[in-house]
Amino acid sequence: MMSLILKKTGLGAGTLLLGVLSLSVLSLSSGTAFGQEATTPDALASFAASVDIAYILNTMLFLIGGFLVMWMAAGFAMLEAGLVRSKNVSMQCLKNISLYSIAGLMFWLIGYNLMYSGVDGGYFGTPTPKIIDPVGGNDLATGYSGASDWFFQMVFCAATASIVSGTLAERIKLWPFLIFTAVLTGILYPITGSWEWGAGWLDGMGFSDFAGSTLVHSVGGWAALSGAILLGARAGKYTADGQVVAMPGSSIPLATLGTFILWLGWFGFNGASQLAMGTIADVTDISRIFVNTNLAASGGVIAAVILTQIIYKKVDVTMALNGALAGLVSITAEPLAPSIFTSVIIGGVGGVIVVFAVPMLDKLKIDDVVGAIPVHLLAGIWGTMIVPFSNSDATYWVQFVGVVSIGAFTFIASGLVWGLLKATIGLRPSAEEEAMGMDKAEVGIEAYPEFGQGSQRI
Amino acid sequence: MMSLILKKTGLGAGTLLLGVLSLSVLSLSSGTAFGQEATTPDALASFAASVDIAYILNTMLFLIGGFLVMWMAAGFAMLEAGLVRSKNVSMQCLKNISLYSIAGLMFWLIGYNLMYSGVDGGYFGTPTPKIIDPVGGNDLATGYSGASDWFFQMVFCAATASIVSGTLAERIKLWPFLIFTAVLTGILYPITGSWEWGAGWLDGMGFSDFAGSTLVHSVGGWAALSGAILLGARAGKYTADGQVVAMPGSSIPLATLGTFILWLGWFGFNGASQLAMGTIADVTDISRIFVNTNLAASGGVIAAVILTQIIYKKVDVTMALNGALAGLVSITAEPLAPSIFTSVIIGGVGGVIVVFAVPMLDKLKIDDVVGAIPVHLLAGIWGTMIVPFSNSDATYWVQFVGVVSIGAFTFIASGLVWGLLKATIGLRPSAEEEAMGMDKAEVGIEAYPEFGQGSQRI
Amino acid sequence: MMSLILKKTGLGAGTLLLGVLSLSVLSLSSGTAFGQEATTPDALASFAASVDIAYILNTMLFLIGGFLVMWMAAGFAMLEAGLVRSKNVSMQCLKNISLYSIAGLMFWLIGYNLMYSGVDGGYFGTPTPKIIDPVGGNDLATGYSGASDWFFQMVFCAATASIVSGTLAERIKLWPFLIFTAVLTGILYPITGSWEWGAGWLDGMGFSDFAGSTLVHSVGGWAALSGAILLGARAGKYTADGQVVAMPGSSIPLATLGTFILWLGWFGFNGASQLAMGTIADVTDISRIFVNTNLAASGGVIAAVILTQIIYKKVDVTMALNGALAGLVSITAEPLAPSIFTSVIIGGVGGVIVVFAVPMLDKLKIDDVVGAIPVHLLAGIWGTMIVPFSNSDATYWVQFVGVVSIGAFTFIASGLVWGLLKATIGLRPSAEEEAMGMDKAEVGIEAYPEFGQGSQRI
Repeated sequence: MMSLILKKTGLGAGTLLLGVLSLSVLSLSSGTAFGQEATTPDALASFAASVDIAYILNTMLFLIGGFLVMWMAAGFAMLEAGLVRSKNVSMQCLKNISLYSIAGLMFWLIGYNLMYSGVDGGYFGTPTPKIIDPVGGNDLATGYSGASDWFFQMVFCAATASIVSGTLAERIKLWPFLIFTAVLTGILYPITGSWEWGAGWLDGMGFSDFAGSTLVHSVGGWAALSGAILLGARAGKYTADGQVVAMPGSSIPLATLGTFILWLGWFGFNGASQLAMGTIADVTDISRIFVNTNLAASGGVIAAVILTQIIYKKVDVTMALNGALAGLVSITAEPLAPSIFTSVIIGGVGGVIVVFAVPMLDKLKIDDVVGAIPVHLLAGIWGTMIVPFSNSDATYWVQFVGVVSIGAFTFIASGLVWGLLKATIGLRPSAEEEAMGMDKAEVGIEAYPEFGQGSQRI
Repeated sequence: MMSLILKKTGLGAGTLLLGVLSLSVLSLSSGTAFGQEATTPDALASFAASVDIAYILNTMLFLIGGFLVMWMAAGFAMLEAGLVRSKNVSMQCLKNISLYSIAGLMFWLIGYNLMYSGVDGGYFGTPTPKIIDPVGGNDLATGYSGASDWFFQMVFCAATASIVSGTLAERIKLWPFLIFTAVLTGILYPITGSWEWGAGWLDGMGFSDFAGSTLVHSVGGWAALSGAILLGARAGKYTADGQVVAMPGSSIPLATLGTFILWLGWFGFNGASQLAMGTIADVTDISRIFVNTNLAASGGVIAAVILTQIIYKKVDVTMALNGALAGLVSITAEPLAPSIFTSVIIGGVGGVIVVFAVPMLDKLKIDDVVGAIPVHLLAGIWGTMIVPFSNSDATYWVQFVGVVSIGAFTFIASGLVWGLLKATIGLRPSAEEEAMGMDKAEVGIEAYPEFGQGSQRI
Repeated sequence: MMSLILKKTGLGAGTLLLGVLSLSVLSLSSGTAFGQEATTPDALASFAASVDIAYILNTMLFLIGGFLVMWMAAGFAMLEAGLVRSKNVSMQCLKNISLYSIAGLMFWLIGYNLMYSGVDGGYFGTPTPKIIDPVGGNDLATGYSGASDWFFQMVFCAATASIVSGTLAERIKLWPFLIFTAVLTGILYPITGSWEWGAGWLDGMGFSDFAGSTLVHSVGGWAALSGAILLGARAGKYTADGQVVAMPGSSIPLATLGTFILWLGWFGFNGASQLAMGTIADVTDISRIFVNTNLAASGGVIAAVILTQIIYKKVDVTMALNGALAGLVSITAEPLAPSIFTSVIIGGVGGVIVVFAVPMLDKLKIDDVVGAIPVHLLAGIWGTMIVPFSNSDATYWVQFVGVVSIGAFTFIASGLVWGLLKATIGLRPSAEEEAMGMDKAEVGIEAYPEFGQGSQRI
């Protein structure tokens, strides 16, 4: 499978170009009708045209896939705005638009080249600013525009930071969160990313993570988990006598909208991770990925709907939404190889994980406001570990090594950053500020000044 | 018109491939500059490249069109969440994400092949699971990836189920709705779909429904109508003395958002129903379709705005929104052939239909919460019946036969399913549950726990 | 730069076609391997195929870019719905869907040809209805489908009208606004547009505005400014003793959603303004534009976040949102030529402009409800004036001439239209109606009937 060899980097470009050429040669030499003259100069002219068009199509894939994944930033914003209480909604909006902005700047200044440039089987690349194609750039050597590749990789980096935002909502100050975001998107995500998509040591071992169940989702989840532990739970979430206090989100339709946005964006996330669209085989694989991605999400929804009906005698809509997301995360490590049936099962198990893991985290008194740890970390591990079931190029052992090594690095490094921030500028607002809500405390603008608690305070 | 012959199915693939080849041959033979050597092996090599690229472009059309129509699921969710009262908003969100998930699974397990496989002039195909292209699939025979085609057809099937959801809101239990959704998307929609797009008997007669005014929108509308009759109106909607009680929707901006999402998605719905993008003629037709689709919606909005100003002395925003949707539904049966002027009129009449039909339904005591019956059923009939005005391949008589036969089948078959569900597990919640709202009764999570009625209940 | 020569019009089509051909010739003649036979008929056949494919790709660019910019209509609707008080939200929704509809109809009936047809170095074209390609259109002469071009240009026209809507919110009657919209989209915008993109006199002078910092955003801003002056501020906004009364928006998450939608749409706005995608150079330039556009927005956000923290000791989320938009407007005049670093600075300055201009407008007692004048007018001027810094084809003097001439025309002409409307049907509702809110006064449907003020009035 070409896409599994290529990785998310320019390193595979030669292969890609070669693939296009050899396909053309193949189609020429396979039919007797094409005769011996097929390799004359004129035929080469049509090869040149094909390569040009492959470049355009590959670049389009990055651009279209890229804007779909960019749109996921809005999805995370709406999901989180809907799942926090109204007194913290403005803050979630602010954090989400800020983190997307920071991710772009850091991934340009340091991240991209730290992840992709000169890793060469090692542990990280060179942290220099990314230089993109000149105006009118016309360099066939890469097989696609470097700027389009940067854009596509950047939005993945931003998605990783979005995951953290939800877990830590309602009780973290703005600035430590933004500083952590800069470190995560500029340094931590690119380092572990380089191990695999930058052709580093894990890639050399044969680790397989098609679109980032581990490299994106679990990394976000581990960073969120370490933060949640150091930050502690929201005031009043866990009572002294062991009760878990429900703190329902302020807007289910916004959370639903966010989930649909993420689902839509995932077609870019997984589909464009094929990294090439210039051949019939590639576009057919992208089509497979669309189908498997969609039905894994369906599996996650239906599993969560049925399970919550059985367990709670009511169908929990937030579980259904998170079931969709868990299905999507689960299939992300390998959305191409599985059959539809296998994809539905993989996604369905993701939904089951969410239903059981959410109360489990509460038992551990880990306060994950939006359920990002079950969805992104646990379903991400599940999706990564099940890759060898459908992809014979992967092994359970190497998948395990990847999950553990990336998890350990991210958990520890994130923990150090969170710890440093806690020890210096502090992570939490005062108890009064937290009770008042972050919107009044730090943003100065309430999300819904005329409704509910808002209107009472005016 | 190729697109009218091809139908939404793989059956037309040979024609498509032939079309590409013959276009190439045409462009070669038409100019004297190309000389006699044009049919030598080298020229054939460039044909091969063209066919490859046509396959890629056709598949891209299905994928891009497909994700736009998938996004309409979010549009229906937001439209309905905005137009129901706040006590039923979580339920609408849950129903919409669940129905989209169910539609995908059922259309994979049964629906697609029931609709497209071996219909051969008859009344239905073979209800087997759909098998998609293998990894690295490279089969030129079809002219596009079968997986992309399945994805594109599936999202149409899901849209049909979304229509039903809105009409029956606020007084139907979750599980009978979900079971009906499974039957509709797995069996009913595919059967009538097979008559036309599956190359069944109606297609043989010359029925014309480009993107589904009847096959999608009216089918959804008939299923909704039969359900609304068996289900009855919401408690308190129609008083004993003949008054109609207004039950205003909880969020006009969400309804507006939903309408804009649907409008956006319709470019995929109608545009990608051209089914091919590998030739200049095809992409030009898609462009025409974009223009006509957009301006039919404009016509629907302006008609509703002016009419409600005249009739009610105020401009009803929900009528404007439904006017847009009615314009879109009206043009869906034939978005290619009409001139812009005709498209505006066709869409404008759709807007007029909505303004008059909404109060008419209330007189009949048919409680359609979001106005889906005027928008999807009535405007769908209008759009289908007016096709012969601009498309000389269609006749009023055959259009009438199609509208009536598909309507009768769907209304009766849906009625039987609704009746069976009513007689067994029951359709309606108890009066107490309905008064309490479906969110508390069946979902257990309120949409807006801090606002309005929500906050009073905490 | 081809895109700077081509303008947004069909006039450049010959050039485009030539470009494609010459590129092909170049790639043939540059390598010795291709030999002398490269210009034989067979090679010409592959040229023909390339031209066909370039036509398809160019048209796709307009369609994809077009639907992204169409989606910005939803972005403006959500941004404005979020930033007005709840008693005027339905009205903003109604105005936004109506203005998008009107823009489409007027740009078809008059606007497009007034802007693009027969301007020939002059001051306007011929105001006739636009005729699009016939069904199955196959005209290679233009290099793309005329219908796709119309669609792409139309959504720009609609965006201009959206800008006006926000500034004048909460105290303008519906019908004068809609009439103004018809004049703006049918006459005013096309006239100034013709000066540059219609190859009129400003284009002849060498004015440079890649995607419309001036032609779209400043034009909308000037029309809004003249309206705001004639209309006056909202009742109670500025007290007799010089205080500015805060009137916070009703929903920050909707405003955030709107901003993300606009950001997404801007990839179509700027990216597809490259106007061609049929060559490697074009798609590479589009990729550059994506990167620069994205990071200019990031710069705007971060500048606004840091500045408001320093000035107000709190981070103002609405400033962050408007900072993103100001960054986007700033880079729109030249998103291709700048380096990434320059783009970040250009966008960042846009963010700074917003933070200082919003209170400045309040000092001038110009009541701009959503901040559209700082974002679209001032950042639009900034973006246009800074073009020569990175694009040596532009001069500061000509940029100044363009900004002033287009500004003067639009401000005066808009003022005349507003004045005429004020003198005839009147612009403002009565004081009672304004206090009651436009939703009750003119729409008859409240946006949130169950929440906040809404619920008290039921």
